[in-house]
Amino acid sequence: MNLIEMSATAAAAAIQQGQVTSQELVQAYVDQINAYDEGIQAWAHFDPDYALSQAKDADLLRKSGQTTGPLHGIPIGIKDIFDTKDMPTEDGTAIHKGRTPAYDASSVEFLRMSGAIIMGKTVTTEMAVYTAGKTKNPHDPYRTPGGSSSGSAAAVASNMVPLAIGTQTNGSIIRPASYCGVVGYKPSHGLISRYRVLQQSLRFDSVGVFARDVSDAALIAQQMMVFDKQDPAMKARMPPKLLETIEQGPLVPPRLVFVKTPAWEEHADNDIKEGFSELVDALGNSVETLDLTDLLKDVVEWHRVIMETDIAKSFQREYKQGKNVMSSSLQEMIERGQKNLAIDYNDAVDHIKALNTALDEIMSEYDAILTPSTTGEAPLGLESTGSPIFCTPWSFCGMPSITLPLMQGSNSMPIGVQLVSSKGDDARLLRTADWLTKTINS
Amino acid sequence: MNLIEMSATAAAAAIQQGQVTSQELVQAYVDQINAYDEGIQAWAHFDPDYALSQAKDADLLRKSGQTTGPLHGIPIGIKDIFDTKDMPTEDGTAIHKGRTPAYDASSVEFLRMSGAIIMGKTVTTEMAVYTAGKTKNPHDPYRTPGGSSSGSAAAVASNMVPLAIGTQTNGSIIRPASYCGVVGYKPSHGLISRYRVLQQSLRFDSVGVFARDVSDAALIAQQMMVFDKQDPAMKARMPPKLLETIEQGPLVPPRLVFVKTPAWEEHADNDIKEGFSELVDALGNSVETLDLTDLLKDVVEWHRVIMETDIAKSFQREYKQGKNVMSSSLQEMIERGQKNLAIDYNDAVDHIKALNTALDEIMSEYDAILTPSTTGEAPLGLESTGSPIFCTPWSFCGMPSITLPLMQGSNSMPIGVQLVSSKGDDARLLRTADWLTKTINS
Repeated sequence: MNLIEMSATAAAAAIQQGQVTSQELVQAYVDQINAYDEGIQAWAHFDPDYALSQAKDADLLRKSGQTTGPLHGIPIGIKDIFDTKDMPTEDGTAIHKGRTPAYDASSVEFLRMSGAIIMGKTVTTEMAVYTAGKTKNPHDPYRTPGGSSSGSAAAVASNMVPLAIGTQTNGSIIRPASYCGVVGYKPSHGLISRYRVLQQSLRFDSVGVFARDVSDAALIAQQMMVFDKQDPAMKARMPPKLLETIEQGPLVPPRLVFVKTPAWEEHADNDIKEGFSELVDALGNSVETLDLTDLLKDVVEWHRVIMETDIAKSFQREYKQGKNVMSSSLQEMIERGQKNLAIDYNDAVDHIKALNTALDEIMSEYDAILTPSTTGEAPLGLESTGSPIFCTPWSFCGMPSITLPLMQGSNSMPIGVQLVSSKGDDARLLRTADWLTKTINS
Repeated sequence: MNLIEMSATAAAAAIQQGQVTSQELVQAYVDQINAYDEGIQAWAHFDPDYALSQAKDADLLRKSGQTTGPLHGIPIGIKDIFDTKDMPTEDGTAIHKGRTPAYDASSVEFLRMSGAIIMGKTVTTEMAVYTAGKTKNPHDPYRTPGGSSSGSAAAVASNMVPLAIGTQTNGSIIRPASYCGVVGYKPSHGLISRYRVLQQSLRFDSVGVFARDVSDAALIAQQMMVFDKQDPAMKARMPPKLLETIEQGPLVPPRLVFVKTPAWEEHADNDIKEGFSELVDALGNSVETLDLTDLLKDVVEWHRVIMETDIAKSFQREYKQGKNVMSSSLQEMIERGQKNLAIDYNDAVDHIKALNTALDEIMSEYDAILTPSTTGEAPLGLESTGSPIFCTPWSFCGMPSITLPLMQGSNSMPIGVQLVSSKGDDARLLRTADWLTKTINS
């Protein structure tokens, strides 16, 4: 049995049943990192001894007969914008160099409570915005892994960890997952706490996960869906039952709607256009096509006004104190954000609710939207992290989305297929994603 | 028994018990309006026959033995920015001349459900902002009644109705009530629906009431505190028990805190400074003094940025289509609002919560803040409606406030004393106001 190829779900069960120890599992992943990370550069902070010492503690705890959580002994990569009490958190910027928080982010705390081993901190773009970090695409070192959760996507794609977490404000989960060929899941806005995570925009920031399959994504996301009053977007409600719903499967075949957004005509490349044409053909009666170009025509502009303004505010101190070590593109974004008008901002905010209402109406007839994750394969070059344009409408609305590595481009690079559901409908989204994966792969 | 001098509470009881009919009561008020409104000009729309026909229906209903509400047969004045299905609603602007809504505002509907007679529509300033309407101060026709709820305050002050409703975004309940010598009560933000009321700023607009005493103010306000999901600021919670709490009275003497705001030094005139000095002396151990100049120093600017921006958005259509009949001061306010920056707006919004938290901490030791309602007596002249500066901090925070006609200035004009409580603490505020009135008048 090759330990690093086991799903997280299977590995957790094997540890639970005493067939494998956490130390064996973590050692296998440590070996993989040692073998491949020099070329891929997924990690901002990685200490193999500390990871193994956590695994040793986990094994002792299990042997002592105490209750263990669903992720007991499983190593996880954490994007380097989540505070960790035992590792540096440097946010991909020299301004925060040497930063060592005293407390864990709530989401990290919930992962530890469920037994996870914090393997290390993964590379982020500069302050989780657009300027690339050092990570390369595991499928081709001359191509971007996508951003901003670059290291988390690359680490899962290269079997350095079975699971990792990241964040998305525009396309920072879905895009790198699509480029690296893994599952990326961004839950509904407000389902996972963002307390002690580097804040860009309270309206859009979402914690999300990277995994090799839908069940593994559900397993880790579920552990973090715990009410935290420190996050103003969270409500004290029962979280969705992701794992149970996936397991039950759909009672009748799901109905999908292939949505063409304003980006489709201009931005989707030939790989995407041909791939989706084949996919829609293959799905036959299960899918209808809907052109939402008109409804979504201003969404990129609305998203931009809010995101830039919020970033200008969130990064006010860094802009004042650290301009000299800040990329010019981030400086310019902040300066644009400082100049946006309140009347335009408030108008854009109103559209969040209005657009959700319009899309909910459409979604009442379907299980999920089917739409590209990215404009195509990961582009050549390591400067840009690619375009988020196929993610923007759903990030704007706070709708849950998942990308599945179901396509391949003309350069044999992976391409993701994105599914999106109504806000709050995460369990059905994952059930549908699991069904689609099995349908396409069967 | 002089009918127009009865409190609304007493009149409602008399009607209930069959001692007085609604027709007798309404006729007495109609006579008063006919006698005095030529000089005061409190009404934008008044049809005595229609008022009397409502009273006749109310009397018939009562005689038929059907259940009657707490305001059965009581005439009420409605500021002309609340939609009414049976009377014009012209918002104090030529742009809305001849506007006849098909539906009642929710608050008006709740008043009708409790049996109220809608006496007519009272004069508002231009679109409830600063440009004066035709109303004069009942105590001196060369002085402003205050705005923007000018007609409602003047109508109650001159015994044309026992009760009236208005709105406050900055000082539009407290100021005219202080100038006209009546009780004005602005409940906590979000306690009374603003659906189908002319909107300036969803963050600050509040429906409030005018009455001759605290119990009457509680009686009418309580009828409107009904959950309405059409108002996004409302929560489906039990409303405060205003009447019961006033009736119980305080168990121990209330503790007041005389708060000096940044406006105190520069804007309070001699009448106010001397009056409050005497008042604080008279209250002795019941009151402490607190200087909040530092805490509140930027609140006028924060309030301005939000209010102007929101007005620019709310009145977008009117500005485009009716600039030629809009006052230059409103035009300029809208133009300033269009230019405010989103980063400043969002910063101001954050201060709403932060300031509430700071004030709640202070308020945990007191029953109410004691502070001026206005800078002094109603100023001479009918152009300006006076300064709202002593209301701004509480409007900004959405805290409940009440003004009591307890002082007189050097020109024998009435001056109000303002009490303010923590957001949501309306019942205690009114109980304290009732206690203060009785203490001062005893």
